[in-house]
Amino acid sequence: MGLLESTIAKVEPQSDEYRQRATAHILNLAIPRWSLGRVFDLAVDLCGITRSMAPPVARKHIVVMSGDHGIVSAGVSEQPQAVTRLVTENFTQGKGSICILAEHAGADLTIVDMGINGDVRHLTDSGKVLDKKVANGTASFTQGPAMTRAQATAAVEAGIEIAEKLAVETDVFGMGEMGIGNTSSSSAIVAVMAGIEDISTVVDRGAGLPLEKLQVKIDAIKSGIELNRPDPDDALDVLGKVGGFEIGGLAGLILGAAAHRKPVVIDGFITTAAALIAHGLCPDAAGYMIQSHGSMERGHPHMLKLLDKKPLFYLDLRLGEGTGAALAMNLIDAAVKVMTRMATFEESNITEEGL
Amino acid sequence: MGLLESTIAKVEPQSDEYRQRATAHILNLAIPRWSLGRVFDLAVDLCGITRSMAPPVARKHIVVMSGDHGIVSAGVSEQPQAVTRLVTENFTQGKGSICILAEHAGADLTIVDMGINGDVRHLTDSGKVLDKKVANGTASFTQGPAMTRAQATAAVEAGIEIAEKLAVETDVFGMGEMGIGNTSSSSAIVAVMAGIEDISTVVDRGAGLPLEKLQVKIDAIKSGIELNRPDPDDALDVLGKVGGFEIGGLAGLILGAAAHRKPVVIDGFITTAAALIAHGLCPDAAGYMIQSHGSMERGHPHMLKLLDKKPLFYLDLRLGEGTGAALAMNLIDAAVKVMTRMATFEESNITEEGL
Repeated sequence: MGLLESTIAKVEPQSDEYRQRATAHILNLAIPRWSLGRVFDLAVDLCGITRSMAPPVARKHIVVMSGDHGIVSAGVSEQPQAVTRLVTENFTQGKGSICILAEHAGADLTIVDMGINGDVRHLTDSGKVLDKKVANGTASFTQGPAMTRAQATAAVEAGIEIAEKLAVETDVFGMGEMGIGNTSSSSAIVAVMAGIEDISTVVDRGAGLPLEKLQVKIDAIKSGIELNRPDPDDALDVLGKVGGFEIGGLAGLILGAAAHRKPVVIDGFITTAAALIAHGLCPDAAGYMIQSHGSMERGHPHMLKLLDKKPLFYLDLRLGEGTGAALAMNLIDAAVKVMTRMATFEESNITEEGL
Repeated sequence: MGLLESTIAKVEPQSDEYRQRATAHILNLAIPRWSLGRVFDLAVDLCGITRSMAPPVARKHIVVMSGDHGIVSAGVSEQPQAVTRLVTENFTQGKGSICILAEHAGADLTIVDMGINGDVRHLTDSGKVLDKKVANGTASFTQGPAMTRAQATAAVEAGIEIAEKLAVETDVFGMGEMGIGNTSSSSAIVAVMAGIEDISTVVDRGAGLPLEKLQVKIDAIKSGIELNRPDPDDALDVLGKVGGFEIGGLAGLILGAAAHRKPVVIDGFITTAAALIAHGLCPDAAGYMIQSHGSMERGHPHMLKLLDKKPLFYLDLRLGEGTGAALAMNLIDAAVKVMTRMATFEESNITEEGL
């Protein structure tokens, strides 16, 4: 049994017992019933995930994975592919948006080369970027599969390895990505997995594609799906045929986090595509996902429906890098504090009848 | 000229110059255009409010005001009036929800007796609660005005005095309230100021009024408005006839914060009613308000429309006390960090054409 299968075998659903205990505790707090709403929902999730009434959340770690996409050659992005490498380099210099917001969140940051099309050995050799490169970018899925099935497995297992390595020092995982063209792969993944016929309903402008070029992107994704015919019931097939290396790595990170009973905070459109792959491989993994924000991309609600997730907030973010996941960390801390520190009716001068 | 008039005279609109400078800076950041969405909108507001490209936000102070409401005698609440005093006492013992979330936000907390119906001198004498009591609760506005016009002015001026006192040590104000029955006053205020005929569209269940008693609340508010006929163009008249002492105090806090060019974070339904009063007294004060969350109360969207505000998040909160304002503080810090620390195109290896 390979690492992927053994990891999936370790993933159990959230603990119903701890969800029930957490719910009972919250209902016994000396305030109007469930009056902190989704903060309490989040607290119940954290208890169910960690099997604890005082979920540990202090040690946060955001993993940002970079990878390139062959479909860029079809004109789906205004940015040249080299931007994936350049922005990843910026991450190592503390310049990326996620560097600022990870520090703000009190989160450690690991940058991973899952498949940048270019040489970043100066960064991996110095330890600033983790080397999990599967290949120098995917092939364009308009002309054949983006990657082989073996590469898809390798990408997911690389993500699992990272989660395994970090799990001993991490309470909460966060996810981010960088990859020019990766909204195209993400749109293809949701189209296939949700069985959406009209591709245009899940394709959007990514980092700022001009409206007049949107049809090019729609056509490229449509033809790629028709050519490759990914099997929606086989998530590795979907990942391999229309996905990306960083998407596979992030799916693996989720599985590894779930196997270790750690919450993993999903960011926006691309990380949610990775969540769809993880969910396809292991439905119980969804219980470990915390959806930070709702993306501006029109395909995102379709993804959330498949995962049965509701974002914590909508801030019109469309930057990626894990910025939304970083912004959610503060709410996770708040959820644990209200769970563990608020007074119950017994501890208070307020009676339940009085509220 | 009294304190109210002199304070209103000091309030200027947000600075257009700083809004424009902030916008230009954000458009020059080496990321896709405006890709942190509402976090950037918030940054522009903070710059326009503080007249600074690096808005000071470190020193946060949440002011929670308590007051009682005579309309409780009409059966509009399940909670007895004594709960206002009991919960206010809990605040001084660190037990209130806002105590936990203010600490989480790194915010100082001031508790104010604006009009608790009962003796809290043991708390005001020891300095744990600020004594600004106008009276022992309002009269029921089903039988006449809730307070005199002089009391309404006194309540607002008390809030101004608190803002004046705290302004030297505060960068960001937050607002909270406690007052059994104060959703009824808040519904009445929005009904009057928005000219809403069908009162039922702005009346909801507050802290958990059973559905079968909602009609009692609707009828009480409706008859109170018909009896008092508050003038929507005279905010002091509205406050006096159907408002509450803590609502008046909070309106004053907003005016004082605005006069000192400090942002003030609005919480939920009741604090937004106070914002309507402040806006009615001084339309430019709205520029200093930051709307934290969208309340569960059905009247809240009507208020936000009058103020032209969009909440930062919706978390199904209905606790009050300033809990939503506290949760927004982290986003304010984040907005300033991205404003001041992200790399511009000049500082980056990315060209604008490359993005």
